[in-house]
Amino acid sequence: MQSNNTYGKLCNRFKELDRLQHAITYLSWDQMVMMPANGSQARSESIAELAGISHAKLTAPEVADWLSELEGVELDANQEIRTSVHEMKRVWSNANCLPAELVKEQIVAGSKCEMGWRTQRGDNDWQGFIKNFKPVVELSRQEAKLRQQASGTATPYEAMLALHCHGDTESLIDSIFAELRAVLPDLLQRVIEQQGAVSVSEKANYPVAQQQQLNKEMLDALGFDFNSGRLDQSMHPFSTGGAGDSRITTRYDSSTFLEALAGTAHEAGHASYEGSLPEKWRGLPIGESRNMCIHESQSLLFEKQVFYSKAFMGFMAEKIQNTMPSAAHLRGDDLWRLGTQVVPGKIRVEADEVTYPLHVMLRYEIESGLINGDIEVDDIPELWNEKMQSLLGVDTRGDYTNGCMQDIHWTDGAFGYFPSYTIGAANAAQLFAKIKQDHPDWQTQLQQGDIQFIREWLQDKIWSKACELQSQELMQSATGAGSGADALIAHLEARYLRGEY
Amino acid sequence: MQSNNTYGKLCNRFKELDRLQHAITYLSWDQMVMMPANGSQARSESIAELAGISHAKLTAPEVADWLSELEGVELDANQEIRTSVHEMKRVWSNANCLPAELVKEQIVAGSKCEMGWRTQRGDNDWQGFIKNFKPVVELSRQEAKLRQQASGTATPYEAMLALHCHGDTESLIDSIFAELRAVLPDLLQRVIEQQGAVSVSEKANYPVAQQQQLNKEMLDALGFDFNSGRLDQSMHPFSTGGAGDSRITTRYDSSTFLEALAGTAHEAGHASYEGSLPEKWRGLPIGESRNMCIHESQSLLFEKQVFYSKAFMGFMAEKIQNTMPSAAHLRGDDLWRLGTQVVPGKIRVEADEVTYPLHVMLRYEIESGLINGDIEVDDIPELWNEKMQSLLGVDTRGDYTNGCMQDIHWTDGAFGYFPSYTIGAANAAQLFAKIKQDHPDWQTQLQQGDIQFIREWLQDKIWSKACELQSQELMQSATGAGSGADALIAHLEARYLRGEY
Repeated sequence: MQSNNTYGKLCNRFKELDRLQHAITYLSWDQMVMMPANGSQARSESIAELAGISHAKLTAPEVADWLSELEGVELDANQEIRTSVHEMKRVWSNANCLPAELVKEQIVAGSKCEMGWRTQRGDNDWQGFIKNFKPVVELSRQEAKLRQQASGTATPYEAMLALHCHGDTESLIDSIFAELRAVLPDLLQRVIEQQGAVSVSEKANYPVAQQQQLNKEMLDALGFDFNSGRLDQSMHPFSTGGAGDSRITTRYDSSTFLEALAGTAHEAGHASYEGSLPEKWRGLPIGESRNMCIHESQSLLFEKQVFYSKAFMGFMAEKIQNTMPSAAHLRGDDLWRLGTQVVPGKIRVEADEVTYPLHVMLRYEIESGLINGDIEVDDIPELWNEKMQSLLGVDTRGDYTNGCMQDIHWTDGAFGYFPSYTIGAANAAQLFAKIKQDHPDWQTQLQQGDIQFIREWLQDKIWSKACELQSQELMQSATGAGSGADALIAHLEARYLRGEY
Repeated sequence: MQSNNTYGKLCNRFKELDRLQHAITYLSWDQMVMMPANGSQARSESIAELAGISHAKLTAPEVADWLSELEGVELDANQEIRTSVHEMKRVWSNANCLPAELVKEQIVAGSKCEMGWRTQRGDNDWQGFIKNFKPVVELSRQEAKLRQQASGTATPYEAMLALHCHGDTESLIDSIFAELRAVLPDLLQRVIEQQGAVSVSEKANYPVAQQQQLNKEMLDALGFDFNSGRLDQSMHPFSTGGAGDSRITTRYDSSTFLEALAGTAHEAGHASYEGSLPEKWRGLPIGESRNMCIHESQSLLFEKQVFYSKAFMGFMAEKIQNTMPSAAHLRGDDLWRLGTQVVPGKIRVEADEVTYPLHVMLRYEIESGLINGDIEVDDIPELWNEKMQSLLGVDTRGDYTNGCMQDIHWTDGAFGYFPSYTIGAANAAQLFAKIKQDHPDWQTQLQQGDIQFIREWLQDKIWSKACELQSQELMQSATGAGSGADALIAHLEARYLRGEY
């Protein structure tokens, strides 16, 4: 009885935190999508106030007491409550394991480095940048060690990784990346040799209003409910919010339309996951999305597996004929060819499906070494150039702007995030392979713009599970195996070497 | 020293509350303007959480301690700090003088009554309505008595009035309304007799996109800065937010455009006041807008005195010629005639400038009697019908829908708000009379769409003062006299009997 009561108190506290997080979420959306420029100062102060209240409520002494009260207690042998408390502890521990002084120093050093980077990047000013970046790395190393002590991970970097990819260990990622490394550079060369010249061009004038209409119609087909969400524009596409109120943004360029559509499909995957988490666990850590490797698998499944498939491109071509006259001559096959062009380049965010993992692996190798103490900041440019050459055959020497200074992630110490992009792509391929196996008529359905069978499969295997399972248990239960590289490699070979779908 | 330190603690607490209020403000804006329907539940819960945290921070024991520490202390003979503490006490006392149990009962009874009203109004169901309304009145009477005890007002109703119109007493309002009552019904009859038939018509098709453009251009002319604000659409026009981020909404109807423009001008007045309060007192009660009678004077000055003037209508006619072809034939005089039509009717929100005060006086007479215990709920319909007949010459017998059930205000106990509409109109006329006196060339400037001289005058006399002065001191310092009916009467006679501006 006592333990149930204590568990109830913890649930109430986490639901309070969830209501505060709701406020932060939509105020942040507004800041990026709606707020006029001069609202910035007051908005930042308000969000900081809410974050402060939230942190104080999570780290309050009574929460520690409640959690330790439950330590020795047999929780009715109820697996669900045990998992729920386990996830609460994880969230609590993440918030508690760093001294306030370190967090403050990190915020100051991180903002300084990011602010400097905004101009230094354009100026190709690596020497200027590392003055601010070295303290950021030093503080992140301290953070990683403290997190490692609290969580018992194998390495300091793995403790950082666990913030984003909890459950996916450094050794798992190493083995998946090793497999990719053995295949991708060679695959890339074969794709480039084999890839025919694209005779169609996407360059024309595509009015933004027509693109908006097209994006909305595509979202309808993808099962996005406009009574429970919005589509808006912002500088950088993102999705946020959750059940009942999912907010997607995209960015339009009147000279091209495929990128906006792909971005919207990507965000629709994120939004579908967040919007479909189970009502019964709303506001509790057990009810949240599993980790970023699973999250990114949902967005990449929607974008790479569904949207860019020949079948769905055929459906989109029909939509386009009715909505956007200037692209009405493009057939499904033309769209597919435009969408599956492979061109090795310097910039990660512009990379295609084949080269993207190579960009990520390069960053992973550098950032894990940096945090584990095997690599120093001064070593980065040479390592970057070597790896760009060996993985992608691209020369970045002397070009910091489009080389090791291109990403914002490291500037404020967000180490451990990059791998989720590629583990997400691998998970997406693995999940979709199983979906195709379960639904042999998948292409016919995608051709009709009907993805209900996919939503139902994901609802059953992923969305309804939230944090009930650890990430590898989740992949195992959904596909019969933990995360691996095989499905992604098979997918890339089928699409890019054999042009199958 | 000790007292300064205590004052500093109070300032910090009120600034915290301001940051929480910021969150509530923009989350509420989003709820009304952006949020999809299914977001409602989570949003309400989040806002309630923030309101609860806010209330707890304001009513925490230490705030009472800090305020009483300052009771006996001579605050450096610093008038500004004395006023600041006085306003803090007022806000604190308003939040503290009701038992939590009563507040909870009021919320339950008020929601029930408002929810019922939403269908009962359309059903003309007075008997059904009063079942829910009588408990609301009973609880409001209790509230009023407790507030009277805490604030020492002359009557219970005056304590409710003070929530919205602090500083404007019941006896002041009685005397202004008595003067209006002696003049307006007769003035109304003369205007109706004299008013010629309007030969132009506003009925045509005015595309919403063109109207939006026109409203934005008008806001530019009115000095609204889109780097510090937005204009959007919502069911009911309103303005919210403050310095750096003012949010105005309006409502478009493609068969008419004057109403949307007038509404936008009205909200621009509110937004200009809130957006121009002094930076030095940001977040403190002394830095807030004075009261709703002053607030409404700013919106009505922008709407009735500026926007509907012949001079500004001339300016708008030129704008319209460039923006909205279907209204290009309308001259300034035509717009002015369309905007100054006087037609007595049953509905307050549709009322013109001449009849509006009569609608308000009727409600004031009934609600003050209701709260002071001189009138019972069952008396309302007969009183309503009598007053509509004697003040406006309109028969509302049997029509509850468009009679005493038309307003939402009373349903959840918002007694004491109505007078601000008409005291605001009187203040607006009085302020504008002084502006015209100080700027004899006012019509020339309005004709050019230049209202900078008005903004500067208001900045100097009203906006920069915030709560430094009590409301009647503020009117006195700005116009040389406290609030009165004379300027409003003179304005209505000049515009509606003599067609002067």
